Amino acid sequence: IGSHSAEADSQTEWTDVQKKIIPWRNSTPSLDLETAFQDRAAKLGKSNSRLVVVASLIDKPTNLGGLCRTSEIFGASALVVGSLHYIQDKQFQHLSVSAEQWLPLVEVKPSQLVDYLQQKKTEGYTIIGVEQTAKSFDLTEYCFPEKSLLLLGNEHEGIPANLIHHLDVCVEIPQQGIIRSLNVHVSGALLIWEYTRQQVIKQKQQQ
Amino acid sequence: IGSHSAEADSQTEWTDVQKKIIPWRNSTPSLDLETAFQDRAAKLGKSNSRLVVVASLIDKPTNLGGLCRTSEIFGASALVVGSLHYIQDKQFQHLSVSAEQWLPLVEVKPSQLVDYLQQKKTEGYTIIGVEQTAKSFDLTEYCFPEKSLLLLGNEHEGIPANLIHHLDVCVEIPQQGIIRSLNVHVSGALLIWEYTRQQVIKQKQQQ
Repeated sequence: IGSHSAEADSQTEWTDVQKKIIPWRNSTPSLDLETAFQDRAAKLGKSNSRLVVVASLIDKPTNLGGLCRTSEIFGASALVVGSLHYIQDKQFQHLSVSAEQWLPLVEVKPSQLVDYLQQKKTEGYTIIGVEQTAKSFDLTEYCFPEKSLLLLGNEHEGIPANLIHHLDVCVEIPQQGIIRSLNVHVSGALLIWEYTRQQVIKQKQQQ
Repeated sequence: IGSHSAEADSQTEWTDVQKKIIPWRNSTPSLDLETAFQDRAAKLGKSNSRLVVVASLIDKPTNLGGLCRTSEIFGASALVVGSLHYIQDKQFQHLSVSAEQWLPLVEVKPSQLVDYLQQKKTEGYTIIGVEQTAKSFDLTEYCFPEKSLLLLGNEHEGIPANLIHHLDVCVEIPQQGIIRSLNVHVSGALLIWEYTRQQVIKQKQQQ
């Protein structure tokens, strides 16, 4: 499936862990799917980003569906989820408004994340954890590389300590209120936006 | 209620339409409420913004609850809703994670919005519609005034034409995907973030 799609290829570059991880797939027939991705690539043109959003630690279908919609709209190259079964969830579908038909989804289980992150590093991605730590960069001061991978934390646990060691950098969103933290879909959306904003400004400067 | 709270006062400056619009109120006893707002003001200090988020056109309790949480976290001065009855909704509460106890909520019905926007203009607010129009500014290029009022559109209808005339400016979020538009809570969150980011940078430059 998807062997003619540049987006699919970019998702299957990582050969070592490939066998144990299911590449993106979709419930629509493969021909439709290819056409859909070609249409999307054509519409997106050069604006299709090198941003990968990793949501494998997220449990709630509503957050995953919302992230799917937001990631698609900002032209992310893929959304990574802990299980592709979420796609069949009604809450996911309600929030995603069919974005899963246009955005490549990749299944990487939480137990496979260390291998996956290592592999993406070898592909030149900077691994960015969205987490408050003593060494986190403030989002107002962080400059995103073109090849950015965002790792989002679990709704309750955040990013576990064993994964923090595998990150290149942590970025946190400065928060002023009493309520402790943003919803994970919103946190993800703000980083996706900030990445996009910086890329747009870079492109304008180059013109 | 709240006569000793600077935040409450800033919400009741507009005297003309005051009679027909219920100022913010809360189900907690007034003494607790005052303490809560004083605590919040103390914690927020100067970082408490002059941003008013107007969500009166929004119907879904989930979107309102989410906006309440996000607005509180970024130190908005108030969230305006079409009805304070939303606060009792379980979906609202699930998404707001009790942010309504810290953020002043103001009730302005959709039919009262024209009067309310006019009044806020006389208080020096710039009225900013989040909407795609032929004259909209791109969010990557818009510079927010310190006193900004964001008017968010309805989930399906956006901002009705009769209200567009009363805006000072429209701002739109550049979108690259196939899916037509962002969820209204996410759109709101991105503008609240962008306002906050610009204010943070201005404050750093002044130091």
